Amino acid sequence: MNQRYKITIEYDGTNFFGFQRQPHLRTVEGVLHSVVNKLSKTSEDIIVYGSGRTDAGVHAHGQVVHFDLPNFIPAENLRLALNSMFPLDMAVKKVELVSNDFHARFSTKGKKYRYIVSTSSFVDPFKRNYTGHYKYPVDIKKIRNAIPYLIGKHDFTSLVASGSQAKSNVRTIYSITVKNKDKENELIFDFYGSGFLYKQIRIMVALLLEIGNGKRDADSVPQLLAVKDRRLARRTAPASGLYLEEVIY
Amino acid sequence: MNQRYKITIEYDGTNFFGFQRQPHLRTVEGVLHSVVNKLSKTSEDIIVYGSGRTDAGVHAHGQVVHFDLPNFIPAENLRLALNSMFPLDMAVKKVELVSNDFHARFSTKGKKYRYIVSTSSFVDPFKRNYTGHYKYPVDIKKIRNAIPYLIGKHDFTSLVASGSQAKSNVRTIYSITVKNKDKENELIFDFYGSGFLYKQIRIMVALLLEIGNGKRDADSVPQLLAVKDRRLARRTAPASGLYLEEVIY
Repeated sequence: MNQRYKITIEYDGTNFFGFQRQPHLRTVEGVLHSVVNKLSKTSEDIIVYGSGRTDAGVHAHGQVVHFDLPNFIPAENLRLALNSMFPLDMAVKKVELVSNDFHARFSTKGKKYRYIVSTSSFVDPFKRNYTGHYKYPVDIKKIRNAIPYLIGKHDFTSLVASGSQAKSNVRTIYSITVKNKDKENELIFDFYGSGFLYKQIRIMVALLLEIGNGKRDADSVPQLLAVKDRRLARRTAPASGLYLEEVIY
Repeated sequence: MNQRYKITIEYDGTNFFGFQRQPHLRTVEGVLHSVVNKLSKTSEDIIVYGSGRTDAGVHAHGQVVHFDLPNFIPAENLRLALNSMFPLDMAVKKVELVSNDFHARFSTKGKKYRYIVSTSSFVDPFKRNYTGHYKYPVDIKKIRNAIPYLIGKHDFTSLVASGSQAKSNVRTIYSITVKNKDKENELIFDFYGSGFLYKQIRIMVALLLEIGNGKRDADSVPQLLAVKDRRLARRTAPASGLYLEEVIY
């Protein structure tokens, strides 16, 4: 009988071509697949299932994957083995034994993402890969006025990038918060929802920044959602500011 | 009459082969030289003088350089121009007009460096380029017992790497402090001295960590300095944890 393992990992997305396995490219899933198969010592191909993809340059503090091993390994031993075999830009945070009905993708109940915006006039050299840069003035009150229009169950067709493979664009957002870290010249957005569409958070961040800057009105958001047309919200905040914080099961 | 400019810059050292200009390698001085010469629009070669070198992978929050321009540019304009032309891993913090007797290297009165040690059991993916990793237990009290032996005017021959071009190995250290950032699993060392020898800080950090770990005694330091032999302190902490914080004039 196979043992199923739930693994919580973090990675610096800078040097990965995203999560999904692709031939000849360094991806998170690709590295995981190769490490897990080296470790399993069986001839069968062990498949690694992720909670969902992250794009190139997107980071994770709490991505979750699962896989089955034919041989039992105590959780702490597996954690040490994986960490020893991982490259330095990837680490295991937690290993849990789970029953075979757990699925990293299909069992998800929600996801939390963080987006960090650097608002300094020039890019801080130490933040270039870890924030999205927005050099224009931002009024956080205007952003806070717009946020309630995004919360709840909506069809987010206007805020999804082309290339999405989702059958439905209806998602529920439970909360969005934004705070100012003045000392660091940072704006920090926290998103919690049932799930998010392809590039949805980066498109929402770009939209909220335009509202904060006065380029759009907060109360234009309901109309934007109603038209179900992405061409009205063309911008996408950079991948470098986005972190998958937690997957909720 | 030339105008001399004093420029305070910061850089993420990860993708530089150190400060000093070298053919075919990306270095801080090399980038500065090319940007300043593009900007000057004269046929004469503008030379950029740094306060001193930093090694490959070493960072700076406050490196200082100077150069002369034949044409006068207001400080704020020069700051904006340089920042626009710099690559993203480098930024100008300050531009000052100085008299022609100021010299970035020869006018220095002291330097401040910071060294950040990550003490988690595995390398944090987000810190791998920005800390030095030390996974063994460290007693900060033992380190604090050793520090007074390093402070003051000493011949630091035992703590300089081969390849140093200094005529004398006598330097004065004004202060060394160490603090624990428990929440972050970090130890932060701050060094302030008249100047430091080639790799001296990284060798001192490695020495202090060995003392903190109990591999050496704090009171072995005076003897170590007295023998003037590097072979007794072989280790060097990684470049990634070191930051040139400030140059004092």
